[in-house]
Amino acid sequence: MRANYMLGNQKVELREVPDPVLVEPTDALVEIAASCVCGSDLHSYHGPEVKPRPIGHEFIGRVTAVGSEVSSVAVGDFVIAPFTISCGKCEFCRERLYTSCLRLGWWGSANSHDAACQAEAIRVPMADGTLFKVDAQVDDALLPGLLTLSDVYATGFHAAAKAQVEDGDTVAVIGDGAVGLLAVLSAKQLGAERIILMGRHEARTELGRDFGATDVVSERGEEGIAKVRELTGHGAPKVLEAVGLMPAFEQALGIVRPGGVISRVGVPQYQTGPVGRQFFSPNVTLTGGVAPVRKYIARLLPGVLEGRVNPGKVFDSVLPLAQVADAYAAMEARTSLKVMLRG
Amino acid sequence: MRANYMLGNQKVELREVPDPVLVEPTDALVEIAASCVCGSDLHSYHGPEVKPRPIGHEFIGRVTAVGSEVSSVAVGDFVIAPFTISCGKCEFCRERLYTSCLRLGWWGSANSHDAACQAEAIRVPMADGTLFKVDAQVDDALLPGLLTLSDVYATGFHAAAKAQVEDGDTVAVIGDGAVGLLAVLSAKQLGAERIILMGRHEARTELGRDFGATDVVSERGEEGIAKVRELTGHGAPKVLEAVGLMPAFEQALGIVRPGGVISRVGVPQYQTGPVGRQFFSPNVTLTGGVAPVRKYIARLLPGVLEGRVNPGKVFDSVLPLAQVADAYAAMEARTSLKVMLRG
Repeated sequence: MRANYMLGNQKVELREVPDPVLVEPTDALVEIAASCVCGSDLHSYHGPEVKPRPIGHEFIGRVTAVGSEVSSVAVGDFVIAPFTISCGKCEFCRERLYTSCLRLGWWGSANSHDAACQAEAIRVPMADGTLFKVDAQVDDALLPGLLTLSDVYATGFHAAAKAQVEDGDTVAVIGDGAVGLLAVLSAKQLGAERIILMGRHEARTELGRDFGATDVVSERGEEGIAKVRELTGHGAPKVLEAVGLMPAFEQALGIVRPGGVISRVGVPQYQTGPVGRQFFSPNVTLTGGVAPVRKYIARLLPGVLEGRVNPGKVFDSVLPLAQVADAYAAMEARTSLKVMLRG
Repeated sequence: MRANYMLGNQKVELREVPDPVLVEPTDALVEIAASCVCGSDLHSYHGPEVKPRPIGHEFIGRVTAVGSEVSSVAVGDFVIAPFTISCGKCEFCRERLYTSCLRLGWWGSANSHDAACQAEAIRVPMADGTLFKVDAQVDDALLPGLLTLSDVYATGFHAAAKAQVEDGDTVAVIGDGAVGLLAVLSAKQLGAERIILMGRHEARTELGRDFGATDVVSERGEEGIAKVRELTGHGAPKVLEAVGLMPAFEQALGIVRPGGVISRVGVPQYQTGPVGRQFFSPNVTLTGGVAPVRKYIARLLPGVLEGRVNPGKVFDSVLPLAQVADAYAAMEARTSLKVMLRG
C-alpha cells in the first residue's frame, strides 16, 4: 500500500510500504476512506529535515480485519478514529478522559508502532478502546463531516464544553483555523447568543459567520482587545483559544471578563507565561486541554448524520492521496483551510 | 482614637489620631470589636521602611453612625466587614463578584481614604454595599468565628467553592496558614471525604486534622509530590493552593490528577510561571482568585452562630490593640498562627 512520510524541510513523500497486518489480538485493520492534513502536521513540515516517519492522525474508514479479542467492531463496520489511541479500560478511559489513558498512544509514534493515517490502510491498536463505530449508511457526502469528528470538530466542542458555554452566553473565539471555526459552531450548539470570532482571513471568518459568529474582529493585540471591550463592555465571559501561541494567550487574557473563563484547545507552543495576578485579581479561570475526542462523538454524530450541522465545510479542498504533497503545500501557503485526502 | 500605622522595617506604631467622621451620605462609622493581623500585613512589615500608613483589613464591630443614604445597617447593628469595599450596585456586585466591583476599594488605601481597621473605630465607605449585618445576639465567644468571615474563612471557602468540591471528593490543601486550614474546614463542609493537608508546622496541621484533614503530608517538593501520589494513585482531583509562592504553585501542578482542578487563594507573589503543556496535556484547570468574601457570609454565618463549625480556632492568641506591636512580632516569629486584636 501507499503511505505518506514526513521528511521535514517542506517535504513529504508517498512511499510504497507493506500492507498492515494484525499483530495483537486487540488490533483491527482499517481501510482508510478519508484522512486529512492537520495544522500540527505543518509544524514538522516547515521544520528542519527529519528521519522520515509515517504521518497523519485523523481518519475514517472501514474495518477489514479484527483480532480475536476485538468485540466492539467487526469486518465491514464504518469507524471514526480519534486522534489518540486509548485502551478503553483504565480509570481515565472509564471517566472518558481518553487523552489521559494509562496506555495512551499517538498515531505515527513508536507507541502506535508507527501507524499513521495519510495512507491507504492502517493497523489500529486497542481497537475496542479506540475506534467508534458509525451505525448508519455512509455515503460520500457524509465523509467530510464524519472526518471532523476524529479531531477538529470534537476539539472545538471540547473548548466550548470545558468553558461550560450555555444558553444566552457571550463567547469570544480566538483563531479562524478549522478548530476555531468549529469552536464557533460548538458554542452556537450549546446555546451561545453572541459569538465574537477573532480572525483576519476573510474566507474563513465568513465560514465562521455561517457557523454562528455574530461579530468578527480582525484586529489583534491592544486594538483587538479594545474592539472586543467595545462590543462587550467588560470583556467576554467565555473565551475559547484555538491557536496555541503566546500572543493568542495574551489576547485571551486581554478580552476575558472578570469572573470569566479562558478555555484553550490550541496546543501551547510555550512553556511559561503570565499566570499571576492577571488571572488572580479578576478571578479568571483557565481550562481546556488536549481533547478526549471519543467522549464527544456519540453526542455530535447525530447532528452530522442528520445534516443539522455541517462541520465538514472546513474542508475547502479534497485531493486524492496521490497528491498529498500538494495538500501540504496548499495548507502551508494558506490557500486551503484544510485539505481532505481520499484513499 | 488610636490606630495602628505600618512603618516597615519590622515596625508598627499605635498613634493617637482624630476620630473618624461621616463624610459621604453613604458612609457608616463602626466601633471596632475585633480586628486582626493578616499574613499579607507581614509583607510590608518585613519590607523596607515606608511612609507610615494605617493598616488592617479584617474587622467586626458595631455601627455608631450612618449617613443619610445608608439603609441596610443602622446604629447599634453588629456588622462584618469584608476585606474589600464594594458599592453593591454595579453589575459585578449584582453578580456577587464583589472583588471586581467597578468602585472597588481597599482598606488602608487612598481609595478608602486611608481607613484601616487595626484601630478603635473606622469610617466605612459605601456602607450598604460593604457591610454585612449580623442578625443575632453577639457575645465575646462569637467574636473569633465572626472575624474569620471578614477574610480567612470566606477565602478558604472560596478555594473550595471554585474547585467545586463535592460529596466524596479527594482534596489536597497546600499551606497550613489560617486560610489553608480553613480551606480544609470548607472542603469538609462541602462533603470531601479525603482531605490531604500539606504543611509542616505540627500545631497547625493538628488544627487541620481537627478541621477535617484525613492525612498530613509534611514533605515538600518532589518528596511531597511522591507522598501525595502514593496516597492517591494519580494525584488529587481538587487542589486548593493557599500560599501564593511559586514553589506552592509547582507543588500544586505536581500533585493534581489529570482532569483535575487547582484553585488558588494565596495571592500570587509571581507574575509568570509554567502555564503550557503542564496544564494542557492533562486537562488541568486553574481557578480561584481574590475572594469575594461578602458572597459567602450568608451561607457560612449560621454554622458559626450555631457553633456547628469553629473557624475562630485559627486565632491562637488574643491581644489588646495596645499590644499590636507584640501581635506582629509573634506572627513574624511564627509563635502565633493568627492574632486577634480587641478594640
